[in-house]
Amino acid sequence: MQVEHINPFLRSLTNTFATMFGCEVRRGQLGVTTSGRRHFPISGVIGLSGRAVGTVVINLSEEVALKAASALLMTEMTEVDDEVLDAVGELANIVAGAAKAELEEFDLSVSLPNVVTGADHEIRFPTAAKPISVPYDTDFGPMRLEVGLEAVSAPASV
Amino acid sequence: MQVEHINPFLRSLTNTFATMFGCEVRRGQLGVTTSGRRHFPISGVIGLSGRAVGTVVINLSEEVALKAASALLMTEMTEVDDEVLDAVGELANIVAGAAKAELEEFDLSVSLPNVVTGADHEIRFPTAAKPISVPYDTDFGPMRLEVGLEAVSAPASV
Repeated sequence: MQVEHINPFLRSLTNTFATMFGCEVRRGQLGVTTSGRRHFPISGVIGLSGRAVGTVVINLSEEVALKAASALLMTEMTEVDDEVLDAVGELANIVAGAAKAELEEFDLSVSLPNVVTGADHEIRFPTAAKPISVPYDTDFGPMRLEVGLEAVSAPASV
Repeated sequence: MQVEHINPFLRSLTNTFATMFGCEVRRGQLGVTTSGRRHFPISGVIGLSGRAVGTVVINLSEEVALKAASALLMTEMTEVDDEVLDAVGELANIVAGAAKAELEEFDLSVSLPNVVTGADHEIRFPTAAKPISVPYDTDFGPMRLEVGLEAVSAPASV
């Protein structure tokens, strides 16, 4: 993906955490995703399509998932249950939704959010897609954002 | 999701395995997905959006992934490597693509295919989405198809 297209997602993540959670996030270095690295056990995943196709992954430690879900649900969550996982999907939806509004040229729509769990899970993008991976340190704990977005020559629905 | 909307995906999976792989598939009973069940270690995942939003998951044993990839790549694959995982994503893409052509009323487009790995991974749908899960026995081995699709009142891109 082109590096400038990551910026709406970075802004969206920072703004979402600041305004909804009152949580400051500190961004690490942008990198190209390499498979085989170990990350966090909970991922909110949402697909994008339109004049570009892509996926947004928000990969969270349990700690960040619980604190973000507690803020969204306005009640303290202490266990990763269905409500917390639904909140992680909603978080992915919010972040992708705000970013797509800034990427008007692609006329993007979002799929249903899914949440992947499992201590050793890994979410791979197609080898040709070269997603960008961004580590974060936040007041809630560590997390990672991963976005792959590829322009298509004609609308994907045709 | 409405049960009649699963049919295009069932037909697409059966046809893809028959025509591309010469592999017969035998469908088990349709069920509602319940989290916590253990399934197979490799999942091809693709998002759908348009006048409905959804996700298609093709959950494969290593055995089925290797045999399907060998057929797609026209060379015998014996190890689950990047090429095999790309082929699993392409399989999800083919199955979703043929099904969306039959679901014209939703004007669906597909996202980038992702492949989730990890022995204990689980892919959750939003609690409200109630996906349909379908077990298969095939000449290649066992697998599972899972589809969630929800109509939206306005196009998701607005």
